Amino acid sequence: MNTFGTIYTLTSFGESHGVGIGGVIDGMPSGIDVDMDFIQKELNRRKPGQSSIVTPRKEDDKVEFFSGIFEGKTTGTSIGFVVYNSNQHSSDYDNIKDVYRPSHADFTYNSKYGIRDYRGGGRSSARETIARCVAGALAKLALRKYNIEIYGYTSQVGDIFLNKSYNDIDFSKIESNSVRCPDMETAQKMENLIKEVQSDGDTIGGVVSCVIKNVPVGLGEPVFGKLNSSLAAAMLSINAAKGFELGMGFEGVGKRGSEMNDVFYCTGDKVHTRTNNSGGIQGGLSNGEDIYFKTAFKPVATLLKDIETINKENENIVVKAKGRHDPCVLPRAVPIVEAMAAMVILDNILLDRSRRNF
Amino acid sequence: MNTFGTIYTLTSFGESHGVGIGGVIDGMPSGIDVDMDFIQKELNRRKPGQSSIVTPRKEDDKVEFFSGIFEGKTTGTSIGFVVYNSNQHSSDYDNIKDVYRPSHADFTYNSKYGIRDYRGGGRSSARETIARCVAGALAKLALRKYNIEIYGYTSQVGDIFLNKSYNDIDFSKIESNSVRCPDMETAQKMENLIKEVQSDGDTIGGVVSCVIKNVPVGLGEPVFGKLNSSLAAAMLSINAAKGFELGMGFEGVGKRGSEMNDVFYCTGDKVHTRTNNSGGIQGGLSNGEDIYFKTAFKPVATLLKDIETINKENENIVVKAKGRHDPCVLPRAVPIVEAMAAMVILDNILLDRSRRNF
Amino acid sequence: MNTFGTIYTLTSFGESHGVGIGGVIDGMPSGIDVDMDFIQKELNRRKPGQSSIVTPRKEDDKVEFFSGIFEGKTTGTSIGFVVYNSNQHSSDYDNIKDVYRPSHADFTYNSKYGIRDYRGGGRSSARETIARCVAGALAKLALRKYNIEIYGYTSQVGDIFLNKSYNDIDFSKIESNSVRCPDMETAQKMENLIKEVQSDGDTIGGVVSCVIKNVPVGLGEPVFGKLNSSLAAAMLSINAAKGFELGMGFEGVGKRGSEMNDVFYCTGDKVHTRTNNSGGIQGGLSNGEDIYFKTAFKPVATLLKDIETINKENENIVVKAKGRHDPCVLPRAVPIVEAMAAMVILDNILLDRSRRNF
Amino acid sequence: MNTFGTIYTLTSFGESHGVGIGGVIDGMPSGIDVDMDFIQKELNRRKPGQSSIVTPRKEDDKVEFFSGIFEGKTTGTSIGFVVYNSNQHSSDYDNIKDVYRPSHADFTYNSKYGIRDYRGGGRSSARETIARCVAGALAKLALRKYNIEIYGYTSQVGDIFLNKSYNDIDFSKIESNSVRCPDMETAQKMENLIKEVQSDGDTIGGVVSCVIKNVPVGLGEPVFGKLNSSLAAAMLSINAAKGFELGMGFEGVGKRGSEMNDVFYCTGDKVHTRTNNSGGIQGGLSNGEDIYFKTAFKPVATLLKDIETINKENENIVVKAKGRHDPCVLPRAVPIVEAMAAMVILDNILLDRSRRNF
Repeated sequence: MNTFGTIYTLTSFGESHGVGIGGVIDGMPSGIDVDMDFIQKELNRRKPGQSSIVTPRKEDDKVEFFSGIFEGKTTGTSIGFVVYNSNQHSSDYDNIKDVYRPSHADFTYNSKYGIRDYRGGGRSSARETIARCVAGALAKLALRKYNIEIYGYTSQVGDIFLNKSYNDIDFSKIESNSVRCPDMETAQKMENLIKEVQSDGDTIGGVVSCVIKNVPVGLGEPVFGKLNSSLAAAMLSINAAKGFELGMGFEGVGKRGSEMNDVFYCTGDKVHTRTNNSGGIQGGLSNGEDIYFKTAFKPVATLLKDIETINKENENIVVKAKGRHDPCVLPRAVPIVEAMAAMVILDNILLDRSRRNF
Repeated sequence: MNTFGTIYTLTSFGESHGVGIGGVIDGMPSGIDVDMDFIQKELNRRKPGQSSIVTPRKEDDKVEFFSGIFEGKTTGTSIGFVVYNSNQHSSDYDNIKDVYRPSHADFTYNSKYGIRDYRGGGRSSARETIARCVAGALAKLALRKYNIEIYGYTSQVGDIFLNKSYNDIDFSKIESNSVRCPDMETAQKMENLIKEVQSDGDTIGGVVSCVIKNVPVGLGEPVFGKLNSSLAAAMLSINAAKGFELGMGFEGVGKRGSEMNDVFYCTGDKVHTRTNNSGGIQGGLSNGEDIYFKTAFKPVATLLKDIETINKENENIVVKAKGRHDPCVLPRAVPIVEAMAAMVILDNILLDRSRRNF
Repeated sequence: MNTFGTIYTLTSFGESHGVGIGGVIDGMPSGIDVDMDFIQKELNRRKPGQSSIVTPRKEDDKVEFFSGIFEGKTTGTSIGFVVYNSNQHSSDYDNIKDVYRPSHADFTYNSKYGIRDYRGGGRSSARETIARCVAGALAKLALRKYNIEIYGYTSQVGDIFLNKSYNDIDFSKIESNSVRCPDMETAQKMENLIKEVQSDGDTIGGVVSCVIKNVPVGLGEPVFGKLNSSLAAAMLSINAAKGFELGMGFEGVGKRGSEMNDVFYCTGDKVHTRTNNSGGIQGGLSNGEDIYFKTAFKPVATLLKDIETINKENENIVVKAKGRHDPCVLPRAVPIVEAMAAMVILDNILLDRSRRNF
Repeated sequence: MNTFGTIYTLTSFGESHGVGIGGVIDGMPSGIDVDMDFIQKELNRRKPGQSSIVTPRKEDDKVEFFSGIFEGKTTGTSIGFVVYNSNQHSSDYDNIKDVYRPSHADFTYNSKYGIRDYRGGGRSSARETIARCVAGALAKLALRKYNIEIYGYTSQVGDIFLNKSYNDIDFSKIESNSVRCPDMETAQKMENLIKEVQSDGDTIGGVVSCVIKNVPVGLGEPVFGKLNSSLAAAMLSINAAKGFELGMGFEGVGKRGSEMNDVFYCTGDKVHTRTNNSGGIQGGLSNGEDIYFKTAFKPVATLLKDIETINKENENIVVKAKGRHDPCVLPRAVPIVEAMAAMVILDNILLDRSRRNF
C-alpha cells in the first residue's frame, strides 16, 4: 500500500538511509508546464537545516526526474523520480539496531516483517514524505489551470494557539518566519517554546491548519469517496499525525444545528453560504466555499536524553538517541499537508471530469 | 466510489425512498458461521424508532441475503443483500423538490449530477449506513476467530462530556440506555439535553468513542495504508462526521514527547506499553495495545422550524421540514462507527495474512 | 474479485440455485435515459429456452432495479439490481453433492474454500453472466451518446467456420437465427451440428467474433491498461472462454511486417488506415478503425451420458448429469461478449475523459 | 494505468530515450533472499545485442535498486529500481518527429495526449518491458518457496511450428539457441527464416508458449479474477501481443466435450486429471496440473525500407527508419512472457493466502 490516489496516483519508495527516496506519479494530465524551480522550492520547504528550530541535517534533496516530461511539459505517461540520500550518518544508529524505541515503528515493523532497516527509521522515517512533496508540487502545477490555491500554516505548537479565523490571515506571511505561523507575534512565542523544549532534549507537538481556495462545486464521490474522507485519509497517512477535523470539527459538536447550518444566498448566478461551518464540504462534496481543516501532530518520539525501553530479546535497557532530530515536526509538516491536499484535490477533479457533462 | 476496502470490500447501493438499501460484500473468508440473529441485532441498533430521542420512523429494516451463504456458512463468494425500504412518506418531501436545504447535500449533488432523488436525501441519506451495518456485522463474525472486540459509545453530546478514560468504562452498560453512553448519570444528562434541543425543533452534535481490543501486532500497511489512515477514512465517510482523533489526538499536541512516549515493558514473551497515548498504533501499525479513537458528528442539519434558504432558481425562500427526524445522530451513530471499524480491522487482517510468514 | 472495471464498475453476486443473481453498477454517468425495454431485451438474448438448440430451462430472468435511477434517468449514484432465480430444480444436483465433475469448478472451488454450493455449479455457473448483461446493457445506453455500436456473432461452431471478413457481414442478420451467425447457410450447418452433438448427449465449442464501430481515437491507458489487455481480461473472464485474439491475431504471426502494417491515409481531417490488421488498436490505444476480436469457447463440460470421475473421498465413481443443459454455449455467449465489450469501452471513455484536454 | 497486479504490484515508468526505465514493486513478502545475479541474468535474457538475429544495440541494462532490500533480503517495503538508458542514438529519430509510422503508437499517443516523446517510441517502446523483467525476476525468487517453475519458449516463427506437446520438451534446451526454441532443428529453421526476413529489411511474428509447473490448487479469484483472465490481461499488455490461448485454446473449440473433458483420478491423496486440455485451470482456478498457454506476437512494425505514411499535418510522405531494430520480437519476448506469468502467479498466491484456512 505504497500507492495513494485513484487516478492521480503516487507510488513511493525509499528508506531514510538507503539509496534514495522517490516514486512514480501516474495519471498526470499531459501538456502541463513543469516549473522545475517551483518543484524544488516546494521540496526545500520540507528539507532539514532551514533554521535553528529544525534538525541541522544538511540534506541536499534535489529531485531528479526519470520520465514523463518532454521538452518541459508532461506527456501524460508516468513520471519516475528520485531524491538521493546523502549526508547520512548511519553509524548514529548502530546502537539501536536491536532496540525498540518507544513510540517509534521499530517494534511494529519488526513484528510484522521479521526484518527492518533500522537506520534512521528506515521506511517509517518521515524522510519518506519527500515523495509526497514532489507529487504534491506537480499536482499544484496542474491545479493552476483551476486557480486553486492551497495554504497550510502552523496554528498551534504545544499550548500556543493562533487565535484567528483563517479569514483574518495574511497568507503571504506564512513563509516569513521559521515556524510557518502567519501571525508574527504568535510565531515568536511558538519559536521560543520550541527552543525551550529543544534545550531540554525534549519535543513538542502542534497543529497544521490548511485552507483550499477556488475549489469547484461538486468534487468528491459518494459514498466512500467523500472529499472529507479522502482528506482525512491523506492527512492521517502523514507521520506523527493523530487527528483531523474539517470546518468547525470537534468544536462544532457542542453547537446546535441552528447555529451550525450554513445558510445559502446568491450573488447573481453564484451560490454562497453566509457562514462556512461545514468547511467547504457538504454531503461529502465541495460546495464552492473555502475548504479548511486541521491536522494534529504528536510530539516527535525521538528525545535527546536517556530513555528506558526494551530490545529484541525483551530485555530492559537504557538507550540514548544520537543523530540530529527535530524538536518539533510542525514547521516541516506544513508543506507535506499542502502536498497531500493538492493530490486529493487533483485526483477528485480528474474523477469528476470523467463523468461530468457526459 | 461506492466501494470500501481492499480485500474485504463493501459495494453499497440505495436511496432513502427508493426500493431498498443493500450491497455486495466481497472477500469474506469461507466457512464462517453466519449468525443471522446477531446480524439483525446489529441492524436493529441503528434503526429508527428505538426510543423517544430518535426519529419515530418505523422502519422494519430486515436484511435479506441473496448469495454467498450456504447451509449457514459463508462460501467465500460474494454476498449480496438488501434491506427493503418501507414506511416511506415520500410526500413529506414534495415541498423540497426544488429547494437546497442548508448544510444538506441537495445543492452539491445537484451541481455535480444535474439530477437528484430529492426524497429523504436520496443517496446522501444516512439510511445508506444500513449497508455498512450489515457488512460490519459479518466482519465482526469473522473477527470472532481472533477474539477481537469492538466497543463504540457516546462520549459527548453538546457540552456534556463523559469524563472517564476508556479503561474505567464498563462496556456492558453501553446498551443500557438510549444514548449509548456507558455512564448512567452522564447518559441521563445527555438525554435531557437532547430532549431540550428536540423541543426547540433544534438539533445537537456529539462524539462517538470507540475501543478495539485484542488486535494482533502489525496490522496496517505502510505508507499510505497506515491503520490510522484507514480508520480516519472510514469514520469521515459516515454522514455528518467532521473529525477524527486517535489516542490522545488533539489533546496530545500540547504535551511534550517525554510525557507522550509509550514506554515498553515485557511480561514473559509479550511486549506491552506502560501508557497508551498512541492509541494502539505506532508507525501506522497496530502495536497490540487497545486501539481507541473518537469521531465528531455535527448537529443534524434538518431542523423542525422555518429556515431561510434558496431554490434551484436561486430565489430566496423559506421552507419547513416535514418528516420525522433525529434531534441527535449520536445514539444511532454508535453501531455505524463499530461497523466501519470492524471492516477496517478485518480488511487489514486479510492484507496482513497475505504476506506474513510467507 | 467480483468487481470488474476501474471507473464504470460492476460488482456482481449470485449462485445458480440461490435467491438470485445481481450486482451493483458504479460510475454510471448521470442523466442517461434508462430504456428498460432495451435492457430486458438484452437479458432475453442470453436467457435459456430461446430455441431448440439451447437448454430448455424456462428462466424468466426479469431484472429489478433497486437504486440509481430516478424518473427514468440515471442519477450518477450506484445502481443495485437483482434477477431472481426461479424454475430451479435443485434436486437435480443431489447426486453430485460430493462429486467432482470433470472440467467443472467443483474440485477447484472445494479445494480453495472447503465448501461450495454444489447446486447447478453455484457461483461458477454461467448464470452469473446475467449481471454482466445488465451492466453491459446500461453501458450500451451510455455509449449511444458516442454512436458506438457493438456486434457479436457466432463465427465458428465445431469445425464449421464463417469464412467472411467482418466487413462483408450484414449485422442485421445476427438475430435472425438461433445460432446468431449472420450467414444463413453457415448458421444452418452450425445448427445441424449442434443438434447432432446434442443427440449424442455430447457438446461442442465455438468462437464468437465481435466488432466495435465508431470508437474514438485514443482510448486505452498505457502501459498495463492497454485496450487489448482490458478486452482480453474481459473475455477470458467469461465461463468456458479459452482464447482471445485481436485483429489478425494468431494468423498474423505467420505474416511479414510489410504485409501486416496498416498504412495511414487521410480524408480531409480524418486519419484512416488502408488495412486494419491491427484490429483497431495500436500501441494499446484505439486508432479510430473498427475494433474486432475473437473469443474461443470450449465445449460445455456437462455431458448427458455416464461419466467416470471421483468424489470428495477420492473414490472412483460413475455419475450422470441430470438437469437441462446447453449442448453448445455459443448462441448465448454472443450477448455476453457484447456486454463485456461495452463495459470495457465505456470504462475507457470515462478514464480518457478524466484527463483529455485538461 | 502503469500499475499491474493487486497485492504484488509493479508500477513502472520510463521512455526509450529518456533517463531510464524503472518502477516500484509493492507487496513483496519480507525475508526473501535477493539473488542479484539471477535478477541480472533474467534482465540479460531480454537485452538487445545477444545474437545476430536481434537488434545490435548495445544496451548495458544493469538494474540499480533504491529501496526495500536490506542486508540481502527483502524487507516487505516497496522496492524502487531503475535501469539507466545508455547507447541511445536519439538523432536516429529526428526524421520521424512529426511522422506517424504505420502500426506504431505515434498517431494514437499523439491523438490522446497532444504531445509525445517521439524518440525511439517513447513510452510505447518495448524497452518498457525492462521493468517487467525486474519485477518478474523478484517474483520468481519468491516463488522458489513454492517450487514453482516457469518455462517460456518460442514455439512458432512465421510459418515454422514446433510440433510437440509441451510434455515432450526438454526445457533445459531453451537457452541453447538464439531463438529460444527448445528443439534444435526447428530452432535452426526459425533462425534461418528470421535472417531471410531481416535481409529483406522486413520483419516476422511468432508465438511464445509458456508452461507453469507446481502451481497449488485453487489459485484465482472468482468471478472477474479468474486466473486465465489475469494471465490474458498480462500477456496482452506486452507490446505486439495480439492473441492468447489457454490449454487447447482455439483448437479445442472444434472438439466435443467428451474429447475435451479432463477426467479425474487419484494417486493416494492427490487428485490428477488424465488429460490436461483445460491447461491447468478449471472454473478460473488452478487445478494443480501444469498451466500452459500461448501468446501471439505480430511482426515488428519497424521495417528497414521506405514506407509510405502521413505526418502530423496529414500530408502523405515517405520515411525510412534509421536505428537498430529487431527483425523478430520472439527471442526477446520469451523472458517477458515468463516475467508476467511469474507476477500473476505470485499475486494470486498472496490473494489466496489472505483467506485460505482463515
